[in-house]
Amino acid sequence: MREKIINTSISLFGERGFRETSIQDITNALGVTKGTYYYYFTNKVDVLMHIHLRFIDGLLEQQETILNNTTTSNQEKLYDIVGMIIRNIKSGAQSARVFFREMRHLSDEHLAKVLPKRDQFQRNVQDVIEQGMETGEFRKDLRTDMLSFAVLGVANWSYFWYEPDGEVTEEELTDIYMTMIFEGIKMEK
Amino acid sequence: MREKIINTSISLFGERGFRETSIQDITNALGVTKGTYYYYFTNKVDVLMHIHLRFIDGLLEQQETILNNTTTSNQEKLYDIVGMIIRNIKSGAQSARVFFREMRHLSDEHLAKVLPKRDQFQRNVQDVIEQGMETGEFRKDLRTDMLSFAVLGVANWSYFWYEPDGEVTEEELTDIYMTMIFEGIKMEK
Repeated sequence: MREKIINTSISLFGERGFRETSIQDITNALGVTKGTYYYYFTNKVDVLMHIHLRFIDGLLEQQETILNNTTTSNQEKLYDIVGMIIRNIKSGAQSARVFFREMRHLSDEHLAKVLPKRDQFQRNVQDVIEQGMETGEFRKDLRTDMLSFAVLGVANWSYFWYEPDGEVTEEELTDIYMTMIFEGIKMEK
Repeated sequence: MREKIINTSISLFGERGFRETSIQDITNALGVTKGTYYYYFTNKVDVLMHIHLRFIDGLLEQQETILNNTTTSNQEKLYDIVGMIIRNIKSGAQSARVFFREMRHLSDEHLAKVLPKRDQFQRNVQDVIEQGMETGEFRKDLRTDMLSFAVLGVANWSYFWYEPDGEVTEEELTDIYMTMIFEGIKMEK
């Protein structure tokens, strides 16, 4: 039931917005009483925070698996992280929209739980780039923090426009992105 | 006064959200009557649409100037467009947040005015990439539409994290981005 409440909240917040959705709307959509709701969550913002945490925890967990793979190079790890973000669009687009749009409703206490996880995700990308510089896979003359934001920008921006069921597959998109990021678009001399 | 109403609305919508801000809040902040407000705008959504239009029109106008420069290569034009987006963060961050976050409040009629302009901005980036392929500046083996979204992703994502007054200047950030986009991050063989 806890998961059902979270999922219904994601779609209602996603469609109507956080403020425009009442707890009554959520329980109506599920056909349960408010008592059921309050058994799992203390209020509406509490659900919002769980949406955020579940979204970012899911991404961090998948990233962790990629990072812990002892058979892949840093170049492959960076590729896999971008591919993983793209593949998560299909299931996570609405959750991500809610995440970015409704963040202002979270209290400082809530944000203190969410923001370090976002930072951790970015920091892990930066670490892969740094390690790739040490191993000689990547050039050393660019700031790794800015590069990590550039790579995340390419991947995350896809949430705003990419249609996973459209003419470009997730694999093709990842391939184009990583060719640009690894080799650049300038004609080789 | 029209500009003042728009600017005050941007900061109030940005801080509190669109739904949480009343026309009364806006006129109170300006010290004017509601009559003044209704002289310029028919309702609250009307102002939201003007914020959107002004934001995207400003970007399109600056982009147009870059595109019309007959002395620059396509590579330089792409560089200049990304640099222009980064430089607009300082003045436009709040306006952009409102733009992305509150878009769902716009009617279909409103969206029909805004979305073609967003598409035009992306299409112009794609055209520069295509022309650069024709002139032999850029490699020809990657889809230009996907590349345009990749370049815009790098630039636009900065709105979510970049501090224009922080330790990395707008010029340095643009330089790092464009080095990655043009040359890639892989160590040259």
